[in-house]
Amino acid sequence: MIIESPIEKNLSSSMRISITTSLASALHSSAKTTRSLSRPKTLIPFSLSTMAAATATETPAPGAPAAPAGNAGTAAGREAFRQSVVNTLERRLFYIPSFKIYRGVAGLYDYGPPGCAVKSNVLSFWRQHFVLEEGMLEVDCPCVTPEVVLKASGHVDKFTDLMVKDEKTGTCYRADHLLKDFCKDKLDKEPNLAPEKVAELNHVIATLDDMSAEQLGAKIKEYGITAPETKNQLSDPYPFNLMFQTSIGPTGLSTGYMRPETAQGIFVNFKDLYYYNGNKLPFAAAQIGQAFRNEISPRQGLLRVREFTLAEIEHFVDPEDKSHPKFSDVADLKFLMFPREEQLTGKSSTTLRLGDAVANGTINNETLGYFIGRVYLFLTRLGIEKDRLRFRQHLPNEMAHYAADCWDAEIECSYGWIECVGIADRSAYDLKAHTEKSGVALVAAEKFAEPREVEKLVITPSKKDLGLAFKGNQKMVLEALEAMSEAEALEMKSKLETNGEAEFQVCTLNKTVTITNKMVSINKEKKKEHQRVFTPSVIEPSFGIGRIIYCLYEHCFYTRAGKTEDEQLNVFGFPPLVAPIKCTVFPLVKNEQFDTVARAISKELTSSGISHIIDVTGTSIGKRYARTDEIGVPLAVTVDSTTTVTIRERDSKSQVRVKIAEVASTVKRLVEGQSTWGDIQWDYPAAHGSPEEENNPEENA
Amino acid sequence: MIIESPIEKNLSSSMRISITTSLASALHSSAKTTRSLSRPKTLIPFSLSTMAAATATETPAPGAPAAPAGNAGTAAGREAFRQSVVNTLERRLFYIPSFKIYRGVAGLYDYGPPGCAVKSNVLSFWRQHFVLEEGMLEVDCPCVTPEVVLKASGHVDKFTDLMVKDEKTGTCYRADHLLKDFCKDKLDKEPNLAPEKVAELNHVIATLDDMSAEQLGAKIKEYGITAPETKNQLSDPYPFNLMFQTSIGPTGLSTGYMRPETAQGIFVNFKDLYYYNGNKLPFAAAQIGQAFRNEISPRQGLLRVREFTLAEIEHFVDPEDKSHPKFSDVADLKFLMFPREEQLTGKSSTTLRLGDAVANGTINNETLGYFIGRVYLFLTRLGIEKDRLRFRQHLPNEMAHYAADCWDAEIECSYGWIECVGIADRSAYDLKAHTEKSGVALVAAEKFAEPREVEKLVITPSKKDLGLAFKGNQKMVLEALEAMSEAEALEMKSKLETNGEAEFQVCTLNKTVTITNKMVSINKEKKKEHQRVFTPSVIEPSFGIGRIIYCLYEHCFYTRAGKTEDEQLNVFGFPPLVAPIKCTVFPLVKNEQFDTVARAISKELTSSGISHIIDVTGTSIGKRYARTDEIGVPLAVTVDSTTTVTIRERDSKSQVRVKIAEVASTVKRLVEGQSTWGDIQWDYPAAHGSPEEENNPEENA
Repeated sequence: MIIESPIEKNLSSSMRISITTSLASALHSSAKTTRSLSRPKTLIPFSLSTMAAATATETPAPGAPAAPAGNAGTAAGREAFRQSVVNTLERRLFYIPSFKIYRGVAGLYDYGPPGCAVKSNVLSFWRQHFVLEEGMLEVDCPCVTPEVVLKASGHVDKFTDLMVKDEKTGTCYRADHLLKDFCKDKLDKEPNLAPEKVAELNHVIATLDDMSAEQLGAKIKEYGITAPETKNQLSDPYPFNLMFQTSIGPTGLSTGYMRPETAQGIFVNFKDLYYYNGNKLPFAAAQIGQAFRNEISPRQGLLRVREFTLAEIEHFVDPEDKSHPKFSDVADLKFLMFPREEQLTGKSSTTLRLGDAVANGTINNETLGYFIGRVYLFLTRLGIEKDRLRFRQHLPNEMAHYAADCWDAEIECSYGWIECVGIADRSAYDLKAHTEKSGVALVAAEKFAEPREVEKLVITPSKKDLGLAFKGNQKMVLEALEAMSEAEALEMKSKLETNGEAEFQVCTLNKTVTITNKMVSINKEKKKEHQRVFTPSVIEPSFGIGRIIYCLYEHCFYTRAGKTEDEQLNVFGFPPLVAPIKCTVFPLVKNEQFDTVARAISKELTSSGISHIIDVTGTSIGKRYARTDEIGVPLAVTVDSTTTVTIRERDSKSQVRVKIAEVASTVKRLVEGQSTWGDIQWDYPAAHGSPEEENNPEENA
Repeated sequence: MIIESPIEKNLSSSMRISITTSLASALHSSAKTTRSLSRPKTLIPFSLSTMAAATATETPAPGAPAAPAGNAGTAAGREAFRQSVVNTLERRLFYIPSFKIYRGVAGLYDYGPPGCAVKSNVLSFWRQHFVLEEGMLEVDCPCVTPEVVLKASGHVDKFTDLMVKDEKTGTCYRADHLLKDFCKDKLDKEPNLAPEKVAELNHVIATLDDMSAEQLGAKIKEYGITAPETKNQLSDPYPFNLMFQTSIGPTGLSTGYMRPETAQGIFVNFKDLYYYNGNKLPFAAAQIGQAFRNEISPRQGLLRVREFTLAEIEHFVDPEDKSHPKFSDVADLKFLMFPREEQLTGKSSTTLRLGDAVANGTINNETLGYFIGRVYLFLTRLGIEKDRLRFRQHLPNEMAHYAADCWDAEIECSYGWIECVGIADRSAYDLKAHTEKSGVALVAAEKFAEPREVEKLVITPSKKDLGLAFKGNQKMVLEALEAMSEAEALEMKSKLETNGEAEFQVCTLNKTVTITNKMVSINKEKKKEHQRVFTPSVIEPSFGIGRIIYCLYEHCFYTRAGKTEDEQLNVFGFPPLVAPIKCTVFPLVKNEQFDTVARAISKELTSSGISHIIDVTGTSIGKRYARTDEIGVPLAVTVDSTTTVTIRERDSKSQVRVKIAEVASTVKRLVEGQSTWGDIQWDYPAAHGSPEEENNPEENA
């Protein structure tokens, strides 16, 4: 869900990025890139010391040697770290710029074989952790969406970024990007700038997200900013809709868009899903699928792309009861939170107990708190470092007027703190918007155990008197009286009681008539009601899968010394759950007996559903380990006898000796999380059979 | 892969449908709806007796009572059967017309919760059966595709259907549909038609797919066909491109399309994937993802839609060696095949042994045969009936000129025989097309163990003599000489030897020059080569996942008598592998002890990753069974004590008694295919505890 209201705009799942490219500016301001829709309206005194603190306390993964995971502390260090991660990812085909042989398209990436496997593992775990464990209703809706749906949601009118054009070449730029680049450049390159100028430029960077098209245009003019390549004049900023537009059917008359999020598919199905759930609340629906945003000029590699996978949950709940029966399961979790108050007073994020945060009202309600806890568990089980994950609450001016509360799971990587999951209590906004546009009531009902007495205003016109007074116009007056709102009726009631008559505007007649005491009676009456009909609230956790995966890459990546001091070996320390390939099978030396054993183990692993690589090429063991460590394979099975084999763990490089018949089940236990490597080391004897640094004696034969 | 050549057009994965709406016409002709691209050029004397035979020999699933699965034999019977399947699917939210509250969009459907689960199970099994077992390289490419890619593949120019427009209202129709409907209507409604007229109309229906725009237009004029709703005049037929078009980036200058298939994403990555595979052939890449086709007027419910999930494999192989090391694993499979010869001679499909079909050349090569076998195993393990699945070979005129052989897995359902998987040997066409357009060589190399001596034609121009003769034009002549093809060079060589000179067209000079003996020497020379460089062939199995799922629904659906003779209960007899929910947990009567047991079992099932429903509402057992049979839940756990429970199997309705601690593992064994229900019945005592027809004694309490 992205667009929240035509008036107060918010981009909960636009996946905001807090970037800190230069520590100098970062420590003084919040440098953020957000959609024009989500510009907070005041300066937020972000303290980025939290980031420094987090990286400072960072601890290496158990068994992993000192991990230089982006904690170089300087902008250059972060840049260098990112380059080594990205180089490894590209070289090992975790991802590939799409349509590379045709020189690619900005913002489009393919997942190559290991990346595709990681994605598939992340999504499987998401299904297990959310859909299955919570009994959610999963749906799968098309990407092609007719205009009416996105008109109702607000996307057609408001899902825009501000753009300027090179007036001669027509090249387009994001207006806020140009202004920010200009300010940063000045700050970086002109060390002798007057202090008031420095303050001014920093203020512009910090308030960029709040600027209107007019304000941005004025600043661009004031600073004389021109097109970066040509130095040509720029147009005034104007909104550019970020949806990919298309046409449905052959006539060209029916506009469609590629969905910018998956949530709308769930909202329009609310009625059926509620029925499917036995007309009971609460329940959650979930959807995994592609979403599309035609970015003006995609930057930041895998973080801001034009097509991406979203996984969204819409949890529908009675607005009068947002308790959650399983909240106690997560109440004792403690992790980094960054509540509104801390942000506004310039403090840093702090470790809180989830149960306390809900109890003291920091988090609005139990259901929202429950999902925050579940998201925390999801991300950390994937391998996201606890110290580089925080839940940041939206400031009041970031949220739409109807939203009860919003929190973003932000993960720290070399680009700064990245919004990867948005968890918002969106109240009844979406269902009401579609009810209004479609005319289909998307509501729930609470049946009362016993009928309840309620007071209702009843308007009873007297047809006879209306007929006498208005003749042919009687029907129109009658309908107008019956259509009065409660407030209007109460006002008329009081006038009738005071004056005996009241002036009344009949729109369909386009005139004002006089209504007397006789013509209508307005009374409060007691009625019995059997149910309460209401629009449910929706609590929406929305996951940017590609962003989570990119952050995971950075958190799992480390280097360690190879044979020589100079040689640095890359390792992706993925947990077995997400590792693209779970194990390798190598004969220690090339001979037929060992090959046969290796093939038998491979067959066993396949039928257990374990992805693995079998390599009988006779390359040196050290080289083979290095190759597979680099794509994050957690276990290596080396065949060095016909009865037992060694299993080596990637991070600790320790080995155990296991009987051939037990290899597949041992690997499976570890991969499915039933055992840890520690358990396996307890169960099997240590092995020292195949030293990493020695060459295979057969290799040069 | 769809478009195969700008010249010979074929729609391998356009998922052709052979429809037989009326037996009368069906028995005499092939009534097919295909893309204009895939029109076979001759009348195919399809014998639909195969269909009748298949349905006649159909046997009910073991334990299932007589299954009226579409074997009513008449068009009306099939229609009625389809209606009951579709009604059940819609009522139980297997699918939902997309954007229903806005009155939907033709050709777009949502998968509701059970449908989404079935789809997810089918795709998981596909990954296990193909990607994991064959060690394929899975990739994941974007749907948004730049024009240049689809220009190279031929889709921009040729991926069209012929359309006519109502000249007054602008409403669009598929030209072939209108003509076919007209002919059928005449045949159905005018019983006294002259025999030659009947023959003519049948001939039109049968040759519809072969007609050019002009021929279709002429027939429409001749028969005086007008727009169905308005009776207005129709335009001439013209091609309409079926791709959804959009614009990439903000300038509006960069055209993109939503991919009509996933295959192109693999082809453009060939170079990287080949490298990833250690520069070795053969290897296969695979992709699962959405594809989009802007149908003119979608018909046939879930079978012809505008957005659908494809699963495609591109197996790259040396064109000189299409053997497959694992062919022997599938050689003994016997199933229905419908080779070219049988189709052309009016015979029906026949059961062949796969090994024989490859050995005698019916199937072109082992690799193609291997995939046909693997597809057969995939579909039948999902629950597709063996007798209603056939592999139909493309006729010569259906195939592109470069294709070596193509087979479609066709599944019979109430719409006729539906193309659900296309398995094509596409030779080197796709890689060559992208090599040509991108300038990047998509080739493989076979390194020779020893260098080989080869004879090569060497063209050696004499710069001095060329300079003397052509002066300023020397360079152009030189380049033209060096660019000669082998055939051109040999021709010049022979002329030079005979006449001492030869006329030579230099395009860059736009004139013909005279080349003499002195100016160039053309000789065959022996050279040592260390490798052979070639464009690999590609064998492509392409799966229409939505179509397979729809056919599965029809094959699994049956009804059986309820409490009374009149009451018919619907059952989806899904194999546990694809069942959307694997089991239910019900307390027999509503009491706290049983509820506690039920919840404990539910928790255990969740942590074993088994999707299930727990229902403690106290509805009668019979009703609960009926409800869950209707969505195909294979197992029901009924809690009737605190130590043991009963497990009931859906199709046989038989029950066993199992200890509480063993429930999850028993269900898991069955769901993962390690045990059959027969095995379970052997291991555990039969139970007769909770009769289906009796009401729960508590229900009316």
